Amino acid sequence: MANMSIKNKQITPFQLLVTFYFLAMLISFLLLRIPGVYQDGKEVSVIDTLFTAVSAISVTGLTVFNISETFTDFGEIILLIIVQLGAIGVMSIGTFIWLLIGKRIGLRERQLIMIDFNQTQLAGVVRLLKEIIKILFFIEAIGTLILTIHFMRYFDSWSEAFKNGLFAAISATTNSGFDITGHSFEPFYNDYFVQFISMILIVLGAIGFPVLVELKHYLLKKDPSFRFSLFTKITTVTYGVLFIIGAFAIFLLESFQTLKGMPWHEKLFVSMFQSISSRSAGLTTMDVEMFSEATKIFLSFLMFVGSSPSSVGGGIRTTTFAIAMLFLINFANGRKEIQVFGREICLEDILRSFVVIILAAFMVLIATMVLSMTEPDATTTEIIFEITSAFGTCGMDLGITESLSTAGKLVIMVLMFVGRVGLISFLYTLGGKAQKPKFRYPEERIIIG
Amino acid sequence: MANMSIKNKQITPFQLLVTFYFLAMLISFLLLRIPGVYQDGKEVSVIDTLFTAVSAISVTGLTVFNISETFTDFGEIILLIIVQLGAIGVMSIGTFIWLLIGKRIGLRERQLIMIDFNQTQLAGVVRLLKEIIKILFFIEAIGTLILTIHFMRYFDSWSEAFKNGLFAAISATTNSGFDITGHSFEPFYNDYFVQFISMILIVLGAIGFPVLVELKHYLLKKDPSFRFSLFTKITTVTYGVLFIIGAFAIFLLESFQTLKGMPWHEKLFVSMFQSISSRSAGLTTMDVEMFSEATKIFLSFLMFVGSSPSSVGGGIRTTTFAIAMLFLINFANGRKEIQVFGREICLEDILRSFVVIILAAFMVLIATMVLSMTEPDATTTEIIFEITSAFGTCGMDLGITESLSTAGKLVIMVLMFVGRVGLISFLYTLGGKAQKPKFRYPEERIIIG
Ligand SMILES: [K+]
Ligand SMILES: [K+]
Repeated sequence: MANMSIKNKQITPFQLLVTFYFLAMLISFLLLRIPGVYQDGKEVSVIDTLFTAVSAISVTGLTVFNISETFTDFGEIILLIIVQLGAIGVMSIGTFIWLLIGKRIGLRERQLIMIDFNQTQLAGVVRLLKEIIKILFFIEAIGTLILTIHFMRYFDSWSEAFKNGLFAAISATTNSGFDITGHSFEPFYNDYFVQFISMILIVLGAIGFPVLVELKHYLLKKDPSFRFSLFTKITTVTYGVLFIIGAFAIFLLESFQTLKGMPWHEKLFVSMFQSISSRSAGLTTMDVEMFSEATKIFLSFLMFVGSSPSSVGGGIRTTTFAIAMLFLINFANGRKEIQVFGREICLEDILRSFVVIILAAFMVLIATMVLSMTEPDATTTEIIFEITSAFGTCGMDLGITESLSTAGKLVIMVLMFVGRVGLISFLYTLGGKAQKPKFRYPEERIIIG
Repeated sequence: MANMSIKNKQITPFQLLVTFYFLAMLISFLLLRIPGVYQDGKEVSVIDTLFTAVSAISVTGLTVFNISETFTDFGEIILLIIVQLGAIGVMSIGTFIWLLIGKRIGLRERQLIMIDFNQTQLAGVVRLLKEIIKILFFIEAIGTLILTIHFMRYFDSWSEAFKNGLFAAISATTNSGFDITGHSFEPFYNDYFVQFISMILIVLGAIGFPVLVELKHYLLKKDPSFRFSLFTKITTVTYGVLFIIGAFAIFLLESFQTLKGMPWHEKLFVSMFQSISSRSAGLTTMDVEMFSEATKIFLSFLMFVGSSPSSVGGGIRTTTFAIAMLFLINFANGRKEIQVFGREICLEDILRSFVVIILAAFMVLIATMVLSMTEPDATTTEIIFEITSAFGTCGMDLGITESLSTAGKLVIMVLMFVGRVGLISFLYTLGGKAQKPKFRYPEERIIIG
């Protein structure tokens, strides 16, 4: 269906993606205006509702007010539904685009996921959606179950434990990072079990849907000739490397500062959790405002990189970062192609990575300039942190979100939107149709750098 | 000579460049340790001497102390000599590398400069050096003459006027930005004539030596078939565009803030001068500390971009920036090649631009993290400004240079060095020899962004 309509109506999948998010935002906004969403006496302005809608549908989790103090139980359920829609939307559309691209260039990976999609296109899309919802709900259900049982030690009733377990499981799996404690995961900063389970849920959500499908396939051992795709290998390795570098950096930078006096295992868990979370979850087990400037800047960089494509995460994406880094390393060694995992990376993908990185850096630059004008009380570090958190759909903040000006809120909303849709899609949507040059000019070298 | 020794001893021109700067730094350091360089009773530590040596040879102009209050007249002459050596070194080696690359790929541009270099290589190199010194001294002499005559209104004696005129002319032409007033060009902030002459000198120094040669060629009308090279066109247009954008941005951002109440022509000149200066000169007609955060961030970006290759400027270079921007624009329009001025840009140059930009951004990120630890009193904006100023060999500062810690000074010195040598050269010097892959792997597409 989608595929056919794309052909007939000349809508590119990228435009479909942007259109989906615009509609989803509008619906979320309307849902959040339903009477009964907010507690009695709480006035939530239109701009704040819109901000919350964008934050929820993009699974960013930045909030201009305290969720548990503002939302009713009904409101929290609405919020969870929006977050779920957002997560499913991202994963399915992201994966769908991947399949379309795969189809165009004849990839066998496509076969992998569409393995028994040998019906009509419509059936294929429906199957894909079902598969995503099935996997997502499966992960969330297990997470909720484990956390609810564990939370019984904190809450008096099963219903309270379930409510908190459900919220935490969905918040972690969708990487939305919304919390109903008012202090993110700080109440659990000594509870390694909750942190461990959450980290697993966060990774499963942020590692990318194609990876999950391939993993399922691998575990079920259906196909003896199965091999993991290059995408899965690169994105998983990059995710892991970024996690380790992040945890290591936080440990190193904060061990003798904010974390001074903690036992080593506490330092380790704080470092690991904040590192994993900076990929896109935005949940925190300690107040990140306490970190040193260097750590805040490094976390900003990690959030800028973000998560896997076709996942609930944002940023420039792990693959973009990985390809750029691999190219840089090879280039320094005098090579111009990237060979990795027995495959060669396509030149177009290399160029695309660079475009995404530079565009994103530009966006951060301009947003920083704008916010430094609209938020005179915020420091440059706070501003950069807020911007990268929005672009990486991460949702960590240094406490300035609630005091943002209206102009500031609009900028952050745009960043969440672009971070969610992905810059490359955004670029394709804005750009015109591909034009072949009428004739080629002779090449001429010029001095660079 | 240079060409031959390169072949025999396996030294690449890039290693030559780095070696030259290391030696030049060492010599500068020794020159600045000569007794009589500093005024009686002034103690200058080893690290501060080294900092000044690096700052002078890289024509950056960042200073850890007030020049006129610390140096004797003799010391100032030594400083001028180092700056001259630095400027000539940059231009000649930069141009030399350009010629080597040009030769390797058989460019007719090479013919342009080496037009009568049909003798031995040695004679060619000597000729090139002579040409550079001739043009540089010619510009400086004219500048000194004009400024000395004009400065008679400020000083009592011809010798004082000449001293200040000479220093200002060399400071502007070499884009070194050293000043003996103690307040850069602030004393002349109402003197449009000095500013205008300085801006011309700054541009002539920073536009790139090949441009000057081609310009001379064009003006003398020796060759009827003469055409400007693609390099000259791109670098000149980019330089101009950055100047206009910079001036416009400063005017816009500061008109109702710091510059409020000034007559329009004063606003215009302040904007223009600071914009031109941010390319690499570092001279200022007003205290840049007064600017708003947004302007400071924008100036940091401009300094990051820097000046033309084979010029006295630093940064990622104008051409690098131009190619990346052109590619971005074309990419958004679905095209993968860059056609500009009737020529097509080589793919390798596009890739090289991206590598330089991303490496430079990485360097700024890491330096910012380090300085935020070593300079706890400085704000992130001040740190980023200082870093980009060093990398762009610009030399503007927000007043933190003098209070830098030793570790901070070392970081800034490395940045000035890398900014001067150029990242691409640095990369080649570090990297091993080019290796052809033994066999090619099949290509595989992955999801990006
Ligand atoms: K998030
Ligand atoms: K300079």
